[in-house]
Amino acid sequence: MGMVGGGSDAFIGAIHRLAALMDNQIELVCGCFSSDPEISVSSGKSYFLPDNRVYRTYREMFEKEAGLRDGERMDFVTIVTPNFVHFEPAMMALDSGFHVVIDKPITFSLDEAKRIKQKLDETGLTLALTHTYSGYPAVKEARDRVKRGDFGEIRRIYVEYPQGWLSSKIEDAGNPQASWRTDPKRSGKAGCMGDIGTHAFHLTEYISGLRATELCAEINVFVPGRKLDDDGAALIRFSNGARGVLIATQIAAGEENAIRIRMYGNKGGLEWAQHEPNTLWLKWTDRPTEMVRVGQGYMGAAARHNTRTPAGHPEGYLEAFANIYRNFSLTVRAKMENRKPDPLWLDFPTVDDGIRGMQFIDSVVKAGYDDKTKWVKMVE
Amino acid sequence: MGMVGGGSDAFIGAIHRLAALMDNQIELVCGCFSSDPEISVSSGKSYFLPDNRVYRTYREMFEKEAGLRDGERMDFVTIVTPNFVHFEPAMMALDSGFHVVIDKPITFSLDEAKRIKQKLDETGLTLALTHTYSGYPAVKEARDRVKRGDFGEIRRIYVEYPQGWLSSKIEDAGNPQASWRTDPKRSGKAGCMGDIGTHAFHLTEYISGLRATELCAEINVFVPGRKLDDDGAALIRFSNGARGVLIATQIAAGEENAIRIRMYGNKGGLEWAQHEPNTLWLKWTDRPTEMVRVGQGYMGAAARHNTRTPAGHPEGYLEAFANIYRNFSLTVRAKMENRKPDPLWLDFPTVDDGIRGMQFIDSVVKAGYDDKTKWVKMVE
Amino acid sequence: MGMVGGGSDAFIGAIHRLAALMDNQIELVCGCFSSDPEISVSSGKSYFLPDNRVYRTYREMFEKEAGLRDGERMDFVTIVTPNFVHFEPAMMALDSGFHVVIDKPITFSLDEAKRIKQKLDETGLTLALTHTYSGYPAVKEARDRVKRGDFGEIRRIYVEYPQGWLSSKIEDAGNPQASWRTDPKRSGKAGCMGDIGTHAFHLTEYISGLRATELCAEINVFVPGRKLDDDGAALIRFSNGARGVLIATQIAAGEENAIRIRMYGNKGGLEWAQHEPNTLWLKWTDRPTEMVRVGQGYMGAAARHNTRTPAGHPEGYLEAFANIYRNFSLTVRAKMENRKPDPLWLDFPTVDDGIRGMQFIDSVVKAGYDDKTKWVKMVE
Amino acid sequence: MGMVGGGSDAFIGAIHRLAALMDNQIELVCGCFSSDPEISVSSGKSYFLPDNRVYRTYREMFEKEAGLRDGERMDFVTIVTPNFVHFEPAMMALDSGFHVVIDKPITFSLDEAKRIKQKLDETGLTLALTHTYSGYPAVKEARDRVKRGDFGEIRRIYVEYPQGWLSSKIEDAGNPQASWRTDPKRSGKAGCMGDIGTHAFHLTEYISGLRATELCAEINVFVPGRKLDDDGAALIRFSNGARGVLIATQIAAGEENAIRIRMYGNKGGLEWAQHEPNTLWLKWTDRPTEMVRVGQGYMGAAARHNTRTPAGHPEGYLEAFANIYRNFSLTVRAKMENRKPDPLWLDFPTVDDGIRGMQFIDSVVKAGYDDKTKWVKMVE
Repeated sequence: MGMVGGGSDAFIGAIHRLAALMDNQIELVCGCFSSDPEISVSSGKSYFLPDNRVYRTYREMFEKEAGLRDGERMDFVTIVTPNFVHFEPAMMALDSGFHVVIDKPITFSLDEAKRIKQKLDETGLTLALTHTYSGYPAVKEARDRVKRGDFGEIRRIYVEYPQGWLSSKIEDAGNPQASWRTDPKRSGKAGCMGDIGTHAFHLTEYISGLRATELCAEINVFVPGRKLDDDGAALIRFSNGARGVLIATQIAAGEENAIRIRMYGNKGGLEWAQHEPNTLWLKWTDRPTEMVRVGQGYMGAAARHNTRTPAGHPEGYLEAFANIYRNFSLTVRAKMENRKPDPLWLDFPTVDDGIRGMQFIDSVVKAGYDDKTKWVKMVE
Repeated sequence: MGMVGGGSDAFIGAIHRLAALMDNQIELVCGCFSSDPEISVSSGKSYFLPDNRVYRTYREMFEKEAGLRDGERMDFVTIVTPNFVHFEPAMMALDSGFHVVIDKPITFSLDEAKRIKQKLDETGLTLALTHTYSGYPAVKEARDRVKRGDFGEIRRIYVEYPQGWLSSKIEDAGNPQASWRTDPKRSGKAGCMGDIGTHAFHLTEYISGLRATELCAEINVFVPGRKLDDDGAALIRFSNGARGVLIATQIAAGEENAIRIRMYGNKGGLEWAQHEPNTLWLKWTDRPTEMVRVGQGYMGAAARHNTRTPAGHPEGYLEAFANIYRNFSLTVRAKMENRKPDPLWLDFPTVDDGIRGMQFIDSVVKAGYDDKTKWVKMVE
Repeated sequence: MGMVGGGSDAFIGAIHRLAALMDNQIELVCGCFSSDPEISVSSGKSYFLPDNRVYRTYREMFEKEAGLRDGERMDFVTIVTPNFVHFEPAMMALDSGFHVVIDKPITFSLDEAKRIKQKLDETGLTLALTHTYSGYPAVKEARDRVKRGDFGEIRRIYVEYPQGWLSSKIEDAGNPQASWRTDPKRSGKAGCMGDIGTHAFHLTEYISGLRATELCAEINVFVPGRKLDDDGAALIRFSNGARGVLIATQIAAGEENAIRIRMYGNKGGLEWAQHEPNTLWLKWTDRPTEMVRVGQGYMGAAARHNTRTPAGHPEGYLEAFANIYRNFSLTVRAKMENRKPDPLWLDFPTVDDGIRGMQFIDSVVKAGYDDKTKWVKMVE
Repeated sequence: MGMVGGGSDAFIGAIHRLAALMDNQIELVCGCFSSDPEISVSSGKSYFLPDNRVYRTYREMFEKEAGLRDGERMDFVTIVTPNFVHFEPAMMALDSGFHVVIDKPITFSLDEAKRIKQKLDETGLTLALTHTYSGYPAVKEARDRVKRGDFGEIRRIYVEYPQGWLSSKIEDAGNPQASWRTDPKRSGKAGCMGDIGTHAFHLTEYISGLRATELCAEINVFVPGRKLDDDGAALIRFSNGARGVLIATQIAAGEENAIRIRMYGNKGGLEWAQHEPNTLWLKWTDRPTEMVRVGQGYMGAAARHNTRTPAGHPEGYLEAFANIYRNFSLTVRAKMENRKPDPLWLDFPTVDDGIRGMQFIDSVVKAGYDDKTKWVKMVE
C-alpha cells in the first residue's frame, strides 16, 4: 500500500493505516504524505519507511513506483486528502495501473466520479470507498436479514447522524479538520451533507437494498459566517414506496458521532446505532425484541466473515474500517492471482456507491436551498 | 369528579381514574360511562357508585348534578369519549357550571376548540387537557433549564413518536381503540398525526417555549384500505429561527410508545425519552454528559412538586397523568376557595394547548397531502 | 382502610396511601397517623377525614372502629410505623378482627413474627407484607418462567441492592428516615441488612422458588460512629445446590435504589433491575437475548393481571406497591363475601415471607459478625 | 516480534497479532506457531513469513534468532501457548536475550512466576503480561481519578466477570479452548478463577491502587464431571479497610464476557463495564451522574495516550490489547536506544502483576475449597 495524504498531522490518514495494517494482509511501503514535502518526509520516517519510498509529490510516486519490479512495487494506493485532491491522484493512480482506496465523498463533483468509473471500466482495476459504517458486522447482518425478508416489505426508514463538534466556529480557531470541511473550495458543494449526510444516505441504501428516487430537504447554516451547511434534514421517497427521514447535523451540541438507523417492514423492524455497534435490535409485532450480538454463532456468513473475536469482545470503528481494507485486499490479491474472489470479499463500497453519494449531494443541495419546489428527483 | 365515557370496556377512562384517584385529592362521585346505558350502569356499579349517581346520558348527568347541593355535587367532569364526542359534553358541562378535564385532541375541529375557549373566557371555569407527557417531572425540568438558558439559544429540535400497533389492519379485527382512531367520522381530519403527532408537537413547544411558524410535511397511509394517516413526518420552522423535525408513526412494527425529544442550543443539548422517563440527559460541548434523575435534591421546583417518591423509585405514565389531575384539582380547589393558586399548580395543559393542537392538525394535514407547496404557514 | 403511622411528615405512609387508593378498590376511612396526637389530627384533616375517625392512639382506633357497624367500620389496617412499633398494633388489630397490611421487616424480632403467624392461624384473618419488588409484573413473569423450567435447573443467583444515601452520617443532621433506621432500639438487630437486605433476599426466594439453607457473610459499618450495619455481602447456599451472592449496601455513594437480580440455570438466564422495571431480560446459550416487556400480549397471566396499561406506558414503583394492595383487597373482599379468591389474587407476601425475612436477619447478623465460622445454617 | 504458539487454529494468537500490528510499531518476523511442526509451517506461510523464519521448535527459534544480526533478529517474543507451556519458553527467551510478552496467567505455578521475576531482574529485560482490561483508556481514567482522590477513600469494590460459554460440557465436544482450560494438567490449579478471576482481580487492584490482604471464598464445579472450577465468588479485604466482592463464573448461561467493576469512596463512585468500554460512569452524592467518554478533550493524559480516535468512534477489545503492545514496544525501543521511557509508556502489566495473579489463584483455591476457615490471608 502507498498513501497520498495522511501526514503525521492528519486524522483520517492514521485511521487508514491502523485499519489497513491490523489484519497482517497489507504493508505500508511508500507514500506522499503531504503537499508539504518536508512533512511528507518526516511522516514517512516516523512510519519506518526507507527514504527512497517517501515521495515529494504524488505524481513522482506514481511514476517511480510504476517502474519498480513486481513484489516490490506498491499494489494499491490509498487517497486520504481533502475532497478537492481526490480526483487527480485517483485518475493518475489508475492510469499508472494501481488499484485505489479513497475516502468519501469520492470526488469534488459528480462528473469527476463518473469519469473515475469510466476509467475503472477501462482498466479493470478495483476501487474501494471507505464508507466505514457499512463495514460493521451488525450492519451486514441487518442487510442480510432485510434481504431475506425477515421484516417483510420495508416501509419506513429513519436514519440520523448527529454531531456537535461544529457548534461554534472552530474553523476560525485553526482546527484543521473544521477548516477544510467548511470551505467550499476544498470540500465541495456541501458541508455537513457531504461529510456525514453521505454516510447516512449510504447506510440507508446499503441495508435496505432500495434506491431513493426523490427527496424534500431543508439545509441550514446555523453558525454565523460559515459558508457551507452545518445541518440538514431530508424526507426521502424510495423506489418501492418506502419513506425515509434523514437527519444530519454538526451543531447538535454535545453529540459525538451518533449515527443510528431504524427500518420497519410490515412484519418487524431493526435498529442499529454506532454507539453500541456490536448489537443489532430486532423488533417484532408479536414477540419479544431480540438483541442480536456480533460474534455469536447464530450470526450470518457476512457478519461472521467480518468479525475477528468471539462475542463479548467489543469490536469498534477501526475494525469496521479494517473490514473494508481486508475485503478489498482479498479481492485485489485474488484478481492478481487470477482467482475468483469469494462473494463475501466483494462486500465493500465501490465507485457506484461513490457516484450515488455525489448524486445525493447534488440532490440534497438542490432541494435544500429551494423554498418553493417540494420534491426533487434524485439527480442522475 | 364525574365522568363522561370510560366504561369498563374502555382503555383511557381507566387511566384517568387511576390518575385522578391516587393522590387522595379527587373522588369519583358520578358518571355516564357509555353511550350504551346498560354498560354505563354496570360500569358505575363496578366503580362502587350508588345507582342514583350513574346516568344514562350526559345531558341527564349535567342537569341532575347541577341540582345537587354543594359538597355533594361533582366539582368537575372528565370527558374521555372519542374525539367526535368531546365538544358537546364539554360545552354542556361549562354551561352547567362544571370545570372540565378532557382528553386530547381537544375537539373534532379547530373551530370547536375556539368556541370552547370563548366559553371558558365567559364562565371563568377551568379546563385541563391531558397531554400526559408534559406531566413528567423530567420534562418539566427540561423546560425550566431551557428557559433558564442553560443550553443557549435553541437551534435544533428533534421529536419522534414511533408506535407499531397499527402495522396491520387490526381495526378490521374488532380492536375498539383502532376502530375509532382510524375512522374520519369519529377521529377527525387526522389519524396518527392527531392521535400522537399532537403529543409530540405539544412536547416540542412546551419544552422549548418556542412557537412553530411554518411546516413542510408528508403524510402517509401505509396500510391498504385505511382512511386516515398512519404515519407522517414534518420539518418545522420556529419563531426564533430554530428548526425542527417531527416524526410520528403507528406502523413502526415492534415499537411501543417510544416518544423521545432532543433539543440543542449553542451551548448544549438535552434528551428525554418516555422509555426511561425518570432520566433527563444534559449534553455539553466541553464536559461530560450528565444524567439528571427525578427525585434527586438538585432538581428544580417544578420537577420536585411533580414527584412523589425519592430518587430510585421509578415513577411512570400514571404518575405523569396524575400530575395533570393533581395540579388541576389544586387549582380548582383554590379557585373555589378564593385562594390564588400557586404558580406550580397552574402547570397543566389548557384550552390554549388544545387550540394549538388543532392548528397543528389542520396545518400538517394541509401540508402533508400537498405535493407542490413546500412550506405551509401554521393555520391560525 | 385505617392507618397506623403515616403522618404528613412520613415517607412510606404516603407511598402506602398512593398505592392503596389508585385502583379505586380501597378508601382511607380512619387512622392514627402519629404518636404525636396533634400531628395525627392535622394529618387526618389534610387527608380529608372527618374528625371522629382520626384517633389519638391506635388502641383507641381499634376499640372505636370495632364498635362501628358493617360498611362503616374499616376493613383492614395498614401499619407503617418504624419496626419497633409493628408487633403491638398488629396483634391488637388481629385481636380486634381487622386484616392487616404491614411494612417490612414484619417485626422487631423473629419471635414476634412467629407469634403473629400463630394469631393469624387462630383468627383466619389475612396479612400482607409490603415487599414491593415482588409486586412488579416483570418479576412475576420471571418467577413463572423459572417455575415453568425455561432456564433449566437454577444454579447461580446474583442479587444486589446498592444505595448511597447513608454514605455520610446524615442521621446526625436530623434526617428522620436515617435516624430510626440506624438506631438498634427502633430498627432491630440489623440496619442495611434489615432495611434492604431483606428485600433482596425475598426477591431471590420469590423468583427462584428455592430456599436458602446456609450462608457465609460479612457485615460492615463503614460510617464511623454508626451503630448498625450500613453494608454487607453474603454467599448463600440453596436447597437444590444452587449458589447465590447477595449484596446490600447503603454507602455506595451515588447509587439510588438499584436493586437487581440475575439467575442462571443450565439452559439460560434472566435479569431484572428496578431502574428499568418494565423489562425482563432472557438470556440463552444459543439464540439472541430477548427483551420481554410488560404490557405485551405474550406476557403470562400473573404479569398481565398486575399491569394497568398497554406496553410502552412505563409503570413504576407505586404500581408495584399497588399490586400488593389490590391483590390483598381482592382476597379480603372475596373472603368477606365467602367467595374463593382467584389464585392470582393470593400472590402477595404474607406472614411466612415476614418470618423468612426475620430468619434472614438473624442468620446474616450471626454470620456476618463472626470471623471464624464460615457457614451458618439459616436460623429456623 | 516472534511468536510461540498462535497457529492458525488458535484463538488468542490471532488476537495478539492484530493487537501487535495495528499501530505500525511492530512487525511479525518469525515464529514457532504450534507444537505440531506442520501446523507451525503452514501457519507461518499464511502469515506471509519466509520459510527460514518459521521454526519447528521454540528452542530452535531462540537459538537461530539469537544468531541473526541486529535489525534482522526479532526484538521480542510473544508466548501464547496454554498455561503449562509458559514458563519454559519464557525462561529460554530471557536467557537468549529477548524481551517477552506473555498471556495471563503468567505461569503454571506461583513459584515459576517468581523465578521469571528473578530472571528479569538479572537480565534487565522487559516483560509484558496481557491483562487486556487494564488497557482500556476508560479504565486508565478510572485509576487516575481514584488516585487523585475524586471519590475520597475507597470503601467498597464490586467486580464481576460472568461468562456462559462453559454452561455445558463443551470440552467433551472437542472445543479446543474449553479442552485445555478445564484440564488441570494444562491450566493449573484453577479453571474459572485462573482464566477470568485473575482478570477481575487485576482490574480491582489496578484501578483502586489497593492491595488485597485476605479473602473468604467459595469455589464451585457446576458441570458434572468437570475437574476444575467453573464458578466462584470471593469476599476480599483490602489493606486500607476497603471491602470487595469478586464474582467470576463461566456457567452464567447467556452471558458473553461481561466484566464490570464498581468502586465507591466516601465522596462518590465509579462504574465501568466492558460491554460499553468507552464510557466511564462517575456517581456523586449531590450532583448528577456523569458519563465520561473516551476521546473527549477533558480526558486525562493516560486515557488520551491510549486512544486512537476522537470521541464517538468506538474503540474496543483489540485496541485495549494493542495498548499493551504499543506501550511495551515504546518502552523496549526506548531501552534499546538508551532513552528513558515516558512514564505513560510504562503503563502495562508486568511480572509483578503476574505474581499477584498467581498469589490470587493460590489464595482463592485454598479458601474456596475449605468449608471451615473463613478468612485466608493472601498467599505471598
